[in-house]
Parts: sequence; C-alpha cells; structure tokens
Amino acid sequence: MGVNAEVNAKPEARVIAVAGLGLIGGSLARRLADRGRRVIAWNHRPAPYDLARAAGIECVDDVTDLARAVPDVLVLCTPLKAMPDVLAKLAPVLDRRTVLTDVGSVKGQVRDEVKAAGLNDLYVGAHPMAGNEFSGYAASDPSLYDDALWAITFDERTAFDRLLVVADMICEGVGDRFIAIDDDTHDHAAALISHMPHVVSTALANELTETPGRNIAQALAAGCWRDMTRVALTDPDRTRAMVEEDAANVAMLLHHMSERLDSMATLLESGDETAMARIREFFAVARPYREYKARERGGAAHETVTVRIDGGDETVWRGQLLESAKRGEHVTHMTDRGHAVAEVRTALV
Amino acid sequence: MGVNAEVNAKPEARVIAVAGLGLIGGSLARRLADRGRRVIAWNHRPAPYDLARAAGIECVDDVTDLARAVPDVLVLCTPLKAMPDVLAKLAPVLDRRTVLTDVGSVKGQVRDEVKAAGLNDLYVGAHPMAGNEFSGYAASDPSLYDDALWAITFDERTAFDRLLVVADMICEGVGDRFIAIDDDTHDHAAALISHMPHVVSTALANELTETPGRNIAQALAAGCWRDMTRVALTDPDRTRAMVEEDAANVAMLLHHMSERLDSMATLLESGDETAMARIREFFAVARPYREYKARERGGAAHETVTVRIDGGDETVWRGQLLESAKRGEHVTHMTDRGHAVAEVRTALV
Repeated sequence: MGVNAEVNAKPEARVIAVAGLGLIGGSLARRLADRGRRVIAWNHRPAPYDLARAAGIECVDDVTDLARAVPDVLVLCTPLKAMPDVLAKLAPVLDRRTVLTDVGSVKGQVRDEVKAAGLNDLYVGAHPMAGNEFSGYAASDPSLYDDALWAITFDERTAFDRLLVVADMICEGVGDRFIAIDDDTHDHAAALISHMPHVVSTALANELTETPGRNIAQALAAGCWRDMTRVALTDPDRTRAMVEEDAANVAMLLHHMSERLDSMATLLESGDETAMARIREFFAVARPYREYKARERGGAAHETVTVRIDGGDETVWRGQLLESAKRGEHVTHMTDRGHAVAEVRTALV
Repeated sequence: MGVNAEVNAKPEARVIAVAGLGLIGGSLARRLADRGRRVIAWNHRPAPYDLARAAGIECVDDVTDLARAVPDVLVLCTPLKAMPDVLAKLAPVLDRRTVLTDVGSVKGQVRDEVKAAGLNDLYVGAHPMAGNEFSGYAASDPSLYDDALWAITFDERTAFDRLLVVADMICEGVGDRFIAIDDDTHDHAAALISHMPHVVSTALANELTETPGRNIAQALAAGCWRDMTRVALTDPDRTRAMVEEDAANVAMLLHHMSERLDSMATLLESGDETAMARIREFFAVARPYREYKARERGGAAHETVTVRIDGGDETVWRGQLLESAKRGEHVTHMTDRGHAVAEVRTALV
C-alpha cells in the first residue's frame, strides 16, 4: 500500500468487540457477523456463548480479552450501571488504536464515566434507535437494526478519524444511517421525545387514579386516553431510572410543560376576547409539526444529497455535522474524509 | 290492560324521532330501524333522505314535524352549536308525553340550552361512546354502536320514568349498555380522559415545534412520542371548540397537571434523599391503574349482578345509579321500575 493510499484510506471497523450480549448487544453482534465483520464478544455470564458461537461470534472469558484482541472498535453494550466497573477493567489494557464506543441511551452520563476512567480520547458515543420490550440474548434478532437511525455523539476532544470508524460500523457494518451531534443535544432531544413524555403520561394516570369517580372516567375513556397513558404502563422502576439519569433536561422540559398548561388553564378561565385569541394561537403553534406528519403520512420521497464535511479542519466538522442533522438529513455513507452522503428525510420547515 | 299492569309496565321507546342524520344520528337511526323500532328522522338538508328511506326510516320536511308525530323519544343529533335554534323551534310543539334526549359530548351545556328553551322537565341527557374520524350520513354505519357504552345524565328534576324510556332505547333498541350519572360527573370525566389530554398532547407538539433542534428530536422519536402526540394532529379548530365547551373542567385539570409536573421537576432538580423517595412515590401512585390494565389485558371475565334501583323513591335512585357507575358496573337491562341488571366490568380497586 503506497503512502498516498495510506493517507486517504477511510478508517474501517473490520474487527469489532462487543461487551454485553443482551438484546441490543446480542442483536448487534449477530447483525455484524451476518454481514461479514469479525466479531469478538464477552458477556458477564457465559450462558449465551454456545448460541453466539453458532452464529459465528468469537466469545472470550474476560472483558480484558476483548481489549487484548486490539479490535478496531470496542462497543460497550452493558447496562449503564455496569459501565464504571467494565471501564475500570478495560482502562489498563485498552490499545490506543481501538475506538471505544457504546449503545447507552444517555450520552452525557456515559462520557462522564469514560472520562473518569481516563478513556475519553478513545471514545465516540453512539445510540441506536432500536429495541423492544424484551431483554437477553435469547430475544436478540439482527432485524432489530433494519433501517434504524443511530445517534453518534462527539465532544471537543473527539478525533474525526475515530468518528469515521464508528460511522463505518453503522453504515457499512450494520447497514443503518446516523446523525452526529454533541452529547447535550442528544440528551435534550431524548428527554423531549421520550423521558419527559413518560413523566407526563404517568401524571395523567396518577390524575385518574386519584379521581373519586375513576371507574366512571375509565368507562368513558377511548383512543385518546389509551394512547396518552400507554407508556405509563411501563415498569415504573425502569422509567424512574431513565428519568433520573437525564434529570436536568427532564426537569427543564417539565417546567416548560407546566407553564404551557398553567397558562392555557388561565386563558380558559378568563374567556375574554384576548384570551380567546391566545387560545387560537396555542392551537396554531404546532402547525409545522402537523404539516410535517401529513407529508410523512403521504409518503414523501427521500432526496439524496452529498454534504461536504471538512474532516481535516478541527474547527468546522462538528458544526457541519450538527447543521446537517438539524436540516433533517440522515447520513447513509461516508465516502472519504471529506464527504458524507445523506438522505434528506422529510423535515419540519 | 288492567290497572295493575298499567302501573308496573316498563316505559318503552317504540317510536323514536332523530333530529340530524350525520354520522352519529344516521348510524343511530339505521341501528334502531334494523332492530325493529319505528324511526322518524329530519335533517337540516334533505340530501340523505333517499338513502334513509331505503333503510326503513321515515323522513319529514321540518323539525317540528318530528314533534307533531308525538314520538316516545326525540333524540337531538345536531351539532352543539345548532341546538339553541332547533330547541326554539321544538319548544312550542313538543308534546309532554315525548322524552327529549340528545347525543352531545358536553352535558352541562346542552342542559343549559334545554332549560333556556323551557324543556328541562322533558329532558334526559345521553352520550354514546361511539364515533370515528368521518362525518355525514354517507359515513353512517349501524355497527358503530356495537357493544358501545352510553352515559345517561340526570339532574334533580329528571323523572325516573323518562330515564327508563331512554334506557329502553339504549339497551333494547340499540343493544348497548349504559352508566347513569349527573352532568357534572360526566363533564369532569370527559375532560379528564379526553379534553384535557388533547391540550397536553398539543402542548407536547408545541414544545417540539419551538425547539431549535426539532428535526433532531423528531429523528430520534419512537413509539412513546408518536402515541403521546397523535391526538395533537386532530383538526385544531375541532379540539379548540371541544375544550372551550368544557372550559371550567379542563382548566381545573390543567392546573392539576401543571402542579404535578412542576413538583416532579423540582424533585429532579433537588435529587436529595427525600426527593428520591418522593419521586418513587410519584411512580407508585398509578399502581392500581396499571394493575387494572393488566387484568383487562388478561381478559378478566365480566360478572353479572342485579342492582336494586328504587325508582319509586325520588331521594335515592340517583345516588344508587351513580354508586353503581362508580363501582364499574355497566347496566345492560332495566327489568322493571325497581331493578337494573348490570355487568360488572373490571374496575379500579
């Protein structure tokens, strides 16, 4: 391989280590092995090893063996609460050529733990929008990753070449697409579309539970109530853990919602002409969202665009990737150090 | 017929007049005609008359003709905003033997309009939990009423015999079941399970619409967000009208929700031991609701009970019917002036 080819070669994730063979990690390992990547896996209990080996996955006895294989990427797929322990074991043996990533749902917390272990320079965060209500390797299914979107997260220390390795794992290895954003943007968005609404849904269920005529209200309930309270039926301990891990964002958004609802209540109590006009405004705010959903239902086609990402310029690539995500683009392929190919999904305009 | 038989005969709804042949009125008229009741109908435009006559429904040119036929029941199925005009036309010609009822979704407002027209003594409120996203006679379908629950509403002036006529129309005429409650209980429950959650859903959609990274949040959204914002996609003018018609109840419930969410936000910001304990309590409140839904999913069987309703005693029957509804019982049949047969549905305990 000549010097020129060496310089321009796009970093790849040919050897991938997976720590944790639960639903998400097991499905990922199987998907990557099915698509021709070399996958080495470890699990805190060896129970799934026979099945995993039959699926073409190499299994090792100790999490440090993953590091010693010097994989291109090591993916942490353990529960968030197990991360500090796993990171402490990996830190002394992890080769600097390996990119460290994870699949956790709260990126700020994982990065803090990675920093505490002294591994932030090796790290790129990741979060696949995939999952279901089951758990464990027995429930794993490579098709869980069909057409899934991932978030890749970076901070000011993240090396662009390491981000390219994770992008290669996602786009070429798994066959998915991604958006690349900073941790705060990710955690705020996740709080907005999931963690905070879980609290709202639970508060609705609490209101009914504490109403004296609760069986009357429940008898009259139809589709609106069923949908609005479905996620309140989730195991409350799981919901509570999720909310507490993203507490600052959830608290801020709950204050916003509280103000929106209180303000609407006051307008309804007033009922004068000014109030009526402001009630009309309240119902008009979400117009762009309604129009976006109508276009989506109408099956709006995805456009394909090429986006220039100046990977060689440390001052601009983060902003370029973030702006791309804000425009509603999902990256399907990184062609080289300088370009991303992205689908433009229907976006809110 | 002897005197004794006369006294004990259960009042029946043999001849039923329907004012308004839209989705709800048209489906009701067809259902009653299919099941052998004599149905006379009027619509503000005669467009559906040919189809209605083919379905065995007698059609008349003027709303006053409905009253002149001296039906056992006259059902107002017009939009709420058309009610005052229709009531003003009916008031001079309505025979006192006719029971006046309606299918409106806010019972307090309809009763106020009925009172303004001087017709409260003839009136019993009704609200079928049936409907879909379509409108007009062309969309009507008798199966809309399959296994539907109705609310019957009364006030301190309601005559028990008139309630029995409406109950006969619902149970024997339509083949449905009902709960009987006062207007305030109905309108509070409807605000809790529908009107208020519509505002909450819209406030969530507003929060996303006003977020700078809204396309990022939307990209990461999954089932929780989709379900929580589905009703925010309803025509906002329709939602606004519904909320304004039940303004006092909606405002009170929005204040409750605002307080619940603000209090949770403050606890998350505090994060001390006391706060953590109160967060656990927040997630525990809805336990009876989760258990109820789990029993429902498990296909818990309905028990059949006979409930004594002392129709002859003006001071007790309202409370007896209300308590029955609070216990989660749905009345399927009134046997005579003194008894209701009810299914006990799975209830919150």
